[in-house]
This record gives sequence, structure tokens and C-alpha cells, in this order.
Amino acid sequence: MKHLLVLDSRGRKPGGETPLVCTPLVGRTRERVLAEAAHILPKSPDLLEWRVDHFGAIADTAAVIETLRELRRAAGRLPIIFTCRAKEGGGHRVPIGAKEVVALHEAVAATRMVDFIDFEIDNDAELVRHVRQSTQAQEVRLILSYHNHSYTPGHEFLVDRFLEAERLGADVAMVQVKPRERADVLRLLAATAEADTKVRIPLISMSIGPLGSVSRIVGGLFGSSLSFAVGEKASAPGQIPIDDLVTAFDIIRRARGGEML
Amino acid sequence: MKHLLVLDSRGRKPGGETPLVCTPLVGRTRERVLAEAAHILPKSPDLLEWRVDHFGAIADTAAVIETLRELRRAAGRLPIIFTCRAKEGGGHRVPIGAKEVVALHEAVAATRMVDFIDFEIDNDAELVRHVRQSTQAQEVRLILSYHNHSYTPGHEFLVDRFLEAERLGADVAMVQVKPRERADVLRLLAATAEADTKVRIPLISMSIGPLGSVSRIVGGLFGSSLSFAVGEKASAPGQIPIDDLVTAFDIIRRARGGEML
Repeated sequence: MKHLLVLDSRGRKPGGETPLVCTPLVGRTRERVLAEAAHILPKSPDLLEWRVDHFGAIADTAAVIETLRELRRAAGRLPIIFTCRAKEGGGHRVPIGAKEVVALHEAVAATRMVDFIDFEIDNDAELVRHVRQSTQAQEVRLILSYHNHSYTPGHEFLVDRFLEAERLGADVAMVQVKPRERADVLRLLAATAEADTKVRIPLISMSIGPLGSVSRIVGGLFGSSLSFAVGEKASAPGQIPIDDLVTAFDIIRRARGGEML
Repeated sequence: MKHLLVLDSRGRKPGGETPLVCTPLVGRTRERVLAEAAHILPKSPDLLEWRVDHFGAIADTAAVIETLRELRRAAGRLPIIFTCRAKEGGGHRVPIGAKEVVALHEAVAATRMVDFIDFEIDNDAELVRHVRQSTQAQEVRLILSYHNHSYTPGHEFLVDRFLEAERLGADVAMVQVKPRERADVLRLLAATAEADTKVRIPLISMSIGPLGSVSRIVGGLFGSSLSFAVGEKASAPGQIPIDDLVTAFDIIRRARGGEML
């Protein structure tokens, strides 16, 4: 597994096959976003993700940046992922189009108050390039993410989503897919493990929904460097409360007895 | 998943994709076997397995039966699996041959003090038939088990081990294999899930060692009806302490929110 961060929230080097834990914030207003952050920070996630597609004032860039400033103050040095998930990728419907989202990403990157920006790989290639340029210029890291909320594609296609993200200049590659049967969950994990041997950048993957929730627990063993955990409210189906996730990671770490893969 | 028992150790119907927990006893003497049982019974395993290959007096059938009598008394109505694992299957070296093991199984079945007898499917077909007959006559259930402590065979071969056990008249089919890489663990789980749709009997499977230990946690989601947990001492590499295993099962059950597959 390639690690996403040099240090986790406890100041330790991320170790072995234990993924980092990221908690999404899905508040509709500045007050709700900050209240969620205040609620979750004592639970020591390794990162926060602001899911700005849930933010009522998303069309008002100044309001977004103002809330981000307060979020950054609350989070201290904790890394923040800035994500505007599209409806088809499991996001909230937003009143702005893809070009406005790109402009928002550019403005947010320019503040340097976020550490990562997530952008969907299925966007127009020109937009992906634009986001790649504006994040690179500001030393913000780019997560290129593939989402399929209908089904889990075949093994080769999944492996290629990770490779394609790297080809397009991503700093992190993410794949999130919906399983229809339990074999789909295993295929997502196997594709992640194969991609992990083929790319240099860190990977994130998950199989969504109740059927896929186990991938959030064991994904680290197969190369996924981060798992999203529920803070106050799940941002995607199948997410697990942060306390449960950390406990499960501890059990797996003990069971493996520190073995190196 | 097909369930191995009508009721678990708490008198509940085994539910959903949570496997039963079985603790192996690996004492060398009667005193050690009984001490292990006394230690583990308060932790409420669903079954006990007596790994008689670790028993110093295995060649003395009367001594085996005498210890079994005391174990049965200590266990109350808790189901007991009686297993003489061969060296190649991860067992302790025993001073008796396959025919003597079969005679021991016949004598133990005749006492009706055990609920299950485990016999290795790779034994001579005539011996398998003999054990099948003596267990059937005494209403003891037969677990036919396949072991590979060198590597994980291919998908079709693994699926066929479960099918073959059913064809030979097993009441339960078990497959235990060693992974060399993480894809092997996923293949074992996928083969279990496929077999689960093809056979009528309950299945047990696990991928051994630190690399495979995760299969002991998530196997239930893929059709494995039982997981072996460490009591005092592991009987196979990668086994997890019973408390950790039960905690992990609880977390997975919550994460899946009671979804029906």
C-alpha cells in the first residue's frame, strides 16, 4: 500500500495495511458544517472531507471560502479533502454546472486551505486538465475518482480506472462502485490489489452499500489507503461509524501480527 | 449461508451472515484439555473442537474416551467436534496410522458423546466410507475437510472440494488453504461463495496464516458457517482470539444493518 500522508492524526507514520480514516462533513449550512467538525474532531479522524455538494450556498464562492476558512481554523493541521460529488456519483444535486465546479476548485485551490481536491475522472478531459493545472500550481493534491452507483464493472476495467487516474496526473486514484452480489465485492478488492502493484500513487477504493461495507473494513489489506467513516451522518451508503472502524482495524492488525506483505 | 446448528451457545437461532465460533482444545494431557475447556467456556463459544492429535495418549482409546467423558460433562450441551488432524493438514504428529484413526473415530462415535467428527477428504476412499458409515449409524455428523498448507489451488478445484464432500455424504464441507499472496485469500472467499449456491450442506472455509486471518473475520459474508477462534492457544496459524472475533462480527453486523443477501 502507498500511503496518502506522511503522518496520521496521532503524529505516527501510517503503518502496514491499516488505512487512514477520513470523515465526511455533509452540513447544509456553515453552522452545520462547523458543528459536524466539532463533533467529529475529538474522535481523531486522520482527515476531514468537506462534501461541498451538500452546502446550500455552493454557488456563492465567497461563502464557500469563508466557511472553509473557519473549517481550516477548527481542523488545525488536519488534512482536508474538498469534494463536490456529482449526483450520478452519489452526490447531492447542485445548482452549478461542471465548469462552475472547476472554477470553484480553482478558487479553493488558490486559498491553499485544502490539502486534496477530488475531481471525477469521467469529466470532460479538458476540465480534468484544468483542475490538474490549478491544483498543481497551488501544491494541492488531486484525487481523480471513478464512481459507479449502478454496478461493479469487470476486473480489467476496474484496474484500468486506477491506471488512467495516474496517467492523467492524479496524486491519488479512487474507485467507488456498487456491488450487486458478493462476488462483486471480492472483484473490487482484487482489482485494487492488482492496481497496487502497477501504479506509484496511493489508491482508495470501496464497494458501497450494506453488501460492500466489509470493503471499508478490509480494503487496507488489498491496497486501499483510506476508508471513509461516518461522523455525524453517512455521506455514502454502507459507511461505518469511526469508532467501529478503528476497533476493526485494531483487531485485524493484531490478527496479522505485524506481518509484512 | 447454511447453518451448522439450530441454536448458538446463547440459545438463539444463528442469524444472517455471522458464523458460529468454535474454540479448539489442544492440550497434551487430560488435565490440560479440561483446563483449556474451563478457561474458554465462560467466553461462550458456540462449539468446542477437541484436537485429539495433540493428545499424548491418543493411542489409548480408553484414555481418549475417559477424557471425552469429562469434557462432555464440562461442556454440558455445547456441541463438540472431534478431530484428529493429520500432520500434513496442520496437525500434530500422531503415533497411530490412518486405520487406527478410523477405529478411534468409530469408538468415539459409538459413545455418542461428540456431535461432529472431522475426517480428511484426501484419505483413502474406503476409509472415508467407513467413517461415513460409523458416524451415520450413531447420528454423529461428518465434516469432510480438505487441507492445503502449501498453497491455494485454483477456483474450480476449490469449489469442487466442497461439492466432492457433499457427494461423499458429508454433513459439512470444510476447506482450509494457505495463501501465498492476497489474491489467494479473495479466491478462497469467492470459491466459498460459489459453492454456497451449489451445495445443500453447511460450509466452513478459511485461508490460514497472518495473510489469511481476515478470512476468519469476513468468511461468514461469503458462506462460511463457522470460524475457529483461539481459546488458550491457537491450533492453526492466523487464528484470532474469541473476544476479538465476536467484536468484529458485531461491527460487521451493524455495518450491514441486517441486510438480507
